[in-house]
Amino acid sequence: MGELVFIGLGLFDENDISLRGLEEARSADSVFAELYTSLMIGLRIKNLELLIKDKIVLLTRQNLEEQDGEQILTEAKKGKTVFLVPGDPMIATTHVDLRIRAERNGIRTRVIHGASITSAAIALSGLQNYKFGRSVTVPFNGNCPVSETPYNVIKMNMRAGLHTLCFLDLKVEEDQYMHVHTALQMLFSIEDAKHESVITDKTLVVGIARAGSKNPTVKAGLFNEVLEFKFGGPPHILIFPGKLHFVEAEALVTLAHAPDIIGGWVK
Amino acid sequence: MGELVFIGLGLFDENDISLRGLEEARSADSVFAELYTSLMIGLRIKNLELLIKDKIVLLTRQNLEEQDGEQILTEAKKGKTVFLVPGDPMIATTHVDLRIRAERNGIRTRVIHGASITSAAIALSGLQNYKFGRSVTVPFNGNCPVSETPYNVIKMNMRAGLHTLCFLDLKVEEDQYMHVHTALQMLFSIEDAKHESVITDKTLVVGIARAGSKNPTVKAGLFNEVLEFKFGGPPHILIFPGKLHFVEAEALVTLAHAPDIIGGWVK
Repeated sequence: MGELVFIGLGLFDENDISLRGLEEARSADSVFAELYTSLMIGLRIKNLELLIKDKIVLLTRQNLEEQDGEQILTEAKKGKTVFLVPGDPMIATTHVDLRIRAERNGIRTRVIHGASITSAAIALSGLQNYKFGRSVTVPFNGNCPVSETPYNVIKMNMRAGLHTLCFLDLKVEEDQYMHVHTALQMLFSIEDAKHESVITDKTLVVGIARAGSKNPTVKAGLFNEVLEFKFGGPPHILIFPGKLHFVEAEALVTLAHAPDIIGGWVK
Repeated sequence: MGELVFIGLGLFDENDISLRGLEEARSADSVFAELYTSLMIGLRIKNLELLIKDKIVLLTRQNLEEQDGEQILTEAKKGKTVFLVPGDPMIATTHVDLRIRAERNGIRTRVIHGASITSAAIALSGLQNYKFGRSVTVPFNGNCPVSETPYNVIKMNMRAGLHTLCFLDLKVEEDQYMHVHTALQMLFSIEDAKHESVITDKTLVVGIARAGSKNPTVKAGLFNEVLEFKFGGPPHILIFPGKLHFVEAEALVTLAHAPDIIGGWVK
């Protein structure tokens, strides 16, 4: 009987896999990976193969989304198959889809969790987990009008005093990654129909670059200061804080280099 | 110069640490751990010591919260000190506090992330990450009246069509863990002042036990079915879904054994 084990690779490079994940991968008959749903800046597939002591078949978006993961399901019917995925493996919808398809084909599935950008970004900011509302992605707009969805989610959370985690769009296969600067410009440009703009040049924001790497950058400050701040290379992520508890304000000053005036945000 | 490295242990046992975390712990001058903020059912401190090849000083809630972590800060001033923490290390407020105190004492700090129950529970349910609103803890009430906070958070999220992740209270040092059954009973007992109860015997709920272990249990269904379901040992966690996308409904049926009538929840 075959089985399919989804294994989280974590955030930065091949050393972010757990001991359990490594052991499962080493004992597999077939090993697949995808590296397009997140950017792991330190990862080299060669190094991962040396670690696992096996060849890895790299799957593209096309393999998984257009061809419905046929290749991996075929192997998983025959023997123990592992699928290595950045972050925590089931956070991308496309992998939930693959898992459902596997189970319906009588293939047993299991999940070995990994560190996810969701908890890592919250952890690095020093803000409190249970005070985050719904999260949202700021998409590349291409030639389309700027999406209002992220703006509206931030506004709804702020009204409720909650923080918002904003994922910034990426197209790993085209080497395109949205930076904090671009995301802030896009969000600032949205006209609020009710003239109640919640994003002004005095809004408090937190930018995070390269979470999980050896040199993550975390910077909190007023909109204009963070807009001009040099975060360095991708991946970037953005947080719009809501109401702050005083420990959260202290964390932003001490851990995220916010100006001391931040005390004024404590409510 | 000393430094303090916070390392996430993940969810289940000593094998959930990352290769990077293990390497950092092995090269430390002093190793501390705490095991009271979450329950890692498979973890034995002896096995962790064998893995790290060093003695581990176990810190209690009292050491960290009443004595302000003096013991660990004293060591961190002298040399490389690591602090092993269940899940992702900065999710517990008390550790953010310790990190702030270390930085203010001139001790450099770093974070090695681990798998967190937040992303693991979402991953196991098959529900979509960005559709979760604010999360909440269902507390032990002791002799006090039942807290209305979790009920109100669930209600607010449901109104907005969002899912709610409910952490269930635990007192590891007293070996007390809230189960899905108790949490559902408490939430059901709350009288809604506006007579708009959002938790009825027909509400859809998802219970998860032992996320990250070799035999996690995930069960979705109507309130009464999940209330009577045998989840087995702790830790437990609870999700109240909001509006479902059809892939989410499929996931609950295929991965969480929800009854097929769940299609009726897709909106």
